[in-house]
Amino acid sequence: MTATTPTSFVDHDLQRVREALERIGEGDNPLLVETIRHLFGTRGKYIRPTLALLAGRVFQPVGELDPRLIDFGAAMEVVHTASLVHDDTLDDAGTRRGATTVNAGWNGHIAILLGDYLFAQSAFLIASIGELRLMAMLADTIKSLVRGELLQMETAFDWDQAEDVYLAKIGNKTASLLALCTEGAGALYGADAAQLEALKTYGYKLGLAFQVVDDILDLTEDDETLGKPAGSDLAQGTITLPVIYYLRLATPKQRALVLDGQHVEECVASIAASPAIEQARSYAESLVDDALTQLSVLPDGEFRGALRDIAYFSVHRDR
Amino acid sequence: MTATTPTSFVDHDLQRVREALERIGEGDNPLLVETIRHLFGTRGKYIRPTLALLAGRVFQPVGELDPRLIDFGAAMEVVHTASLVHDDTLDDAGTRRGATTVNAGWNGHIAILLGDYLFAQSAFLIASIGELRLMAMLADTIKSLVRGELLQMETAFDWDQAEDVYLAKIGNKTASLLALCTEGAGALYGADAAQLEALKTYGYKLGLAFQVVDDILDLTEDDETLGKPAGSDLAQGTITLPVIYYLRLATPKQRALVLDGQHVEECVASIAASPAIEQARSYAESLVDDALTQLSVLPDGEFRGALRDIAYFSVHRDR
Repeated sequence: MTATTPTSFVDHDLQRVREALERIGEGDNPLLVETIRHLFGTRGKYIRPTLALLAGRVFQPVGELDPRLIDFGAAMEVVHTASLVHDDTLDDAGTRRGATTVNAGWNGHIAILLGDYLFAQSAFLIASIGELRLMAMLADTIKSLVRGELLQMETAFDWDQAEDVYLAKIGNKTASLLALCTEGAGALYGADAAQLEALKTYGYKLGLAFQVVDDILDLTEDDETLGKPAGSDLAQGTITLPVIYYLRLATPKQRALVLDGQHVEECVASIAASPAIEQARSYAESLVDDALTQLSVLPDGEFRGALRDIAYFSVHRDR
Repeated sequence: MTATTPTSFVDHDLQRVREALERIGEGDNPLLVETIRHLFGTRGKYIRPTLALLAGRVFQPVGELDPRLIDFGAAMEVVHTASLVHDDTLDDAGTRRGATTVNAGWNGHIAILLGDYLFAQSAFLIASIGELRLMAMLADTIKSLVRGELLQMETAFDWDQAEDVYLAKIGNKTASLLALCTEGAGALYGADAAQLEALKTYGYKLGLAFQVVDDILDLTEDDETLGKPAGSDLAQGTITLPVIYYLRLATPKQRALVLDGQHVEECVASIAASPAIEQARSYAESLVDDALTQLSVLPDGEFRGALRDIAYFSVHRDR
């Protein structure tokens, strides 16, 4: 990313997080070392540690960042990665972040065990921070991730699912962890109750917006840009917001084509060219607006500004 | 179990643990509730909470047990169950504890997610106890379980593996968690450094002995007694201590039959009738002797006696 993106405010802090990630598994079973290196060597967006760092920096704008924040940021990326490793195993996915998945490059057995190891590692990092309530928050969030994935499984190919079901799904799967990133960082700096609530809501709404945009990009971008096969949501029967909007206005013929499931590429092109995309993007923007109203209770300064900018950035990105 | 077994000393405490287990997942996704009920409704031996409760009772022989011990005992059974759910998925196992496995009765996807949920639940229970070092110990132990399972995978069908490799495997897979049960209970009662070390070593040695006996039973007992298919270790190429001993003294013909892998039943019968069984049992007894030498630094009383009895019991059981 260039110097104009919000992450440039925390480049130095993020580098420390990356170093913490590179140390994970050091000296352990070689298969663990190899697969962990592979995972953290890929082009992740590091959105979760970035949010944690920015939320921390709001309370500590200058000086070397509290090392607990570095461990916290690393833990957030680790738990996210653990859940991706298991999700890719469930989906039998072959590529992620432009690289081979662990289940495809090694095998599903190793992927299950590696995910378990990384979940444990995230708990270990949080334990090392020495804040008990973060531990309970992490455990709760992992349960949310599971709940979201189960809901996605249970509602696959349920073409007429309500928007609320979609929001519950992405709320559990994505927004819960982004909310932990921002609220947890505040907790480490002794933010007051109103600030913690604001940080949590900001993270949650931003997480919903972020996922809506991810779901749009899955329909509008190509494999190369995404680093994974485009249109894979539709192919797997995962109904996303643009698809819900599209089906509402679809002709019987268009609808039949989607439900038939045999012409995914054609359907993706048709949805991508439809007003459903702008409708979904506009919904994501309204979520970002909601998120931004939360920021007023936080200390003013460049990092509060960066939290605002990263929220805009999250809905105007192409990968 | 009857009133003569060591667990009868903690029947009331164990009942409270069972009630805590029955509350897990309450009000959550119905699929989680259903599968969790199924798991905790099976005939588990509850060896892990029993050890935790006995180790706690050594420090608090009378009165209603500290509720943190109940949560701790429940957490120990939960983390064990989580790891069984994932192991059974990896092994494609159909029955466990006399009941259908989650991967077989539902599917592998649900089993992976349920395991993740239960790992998170164990962390949640530990977090609720409010002892930070237990959290780090739990995370470390989950990493050990993974390491043990990986080692098992990596050494499958390695017929001439050293005894040390076998011990490293079961040390990580089984003994690490039993050590946490006893050491963790001591930590909750403010046991001193020597007592903690003794509790940890006791649990670890007992864990090794327990697994050696499990590995014997897999060869000597039937499906009904075991609650899972007998001889499954050999069928999966998991080399256990009796097999290592057997192969050392096997004739070329006997050895060829084991390595050939086509006559598992015949091999199991041949190993079960060989001196390897008594040799392995005698090794387990020596581990129990090691474990028992640790107990002298603990407060004397009926519960220290019960820790001694349960150790003997663990090597003289038939399931």
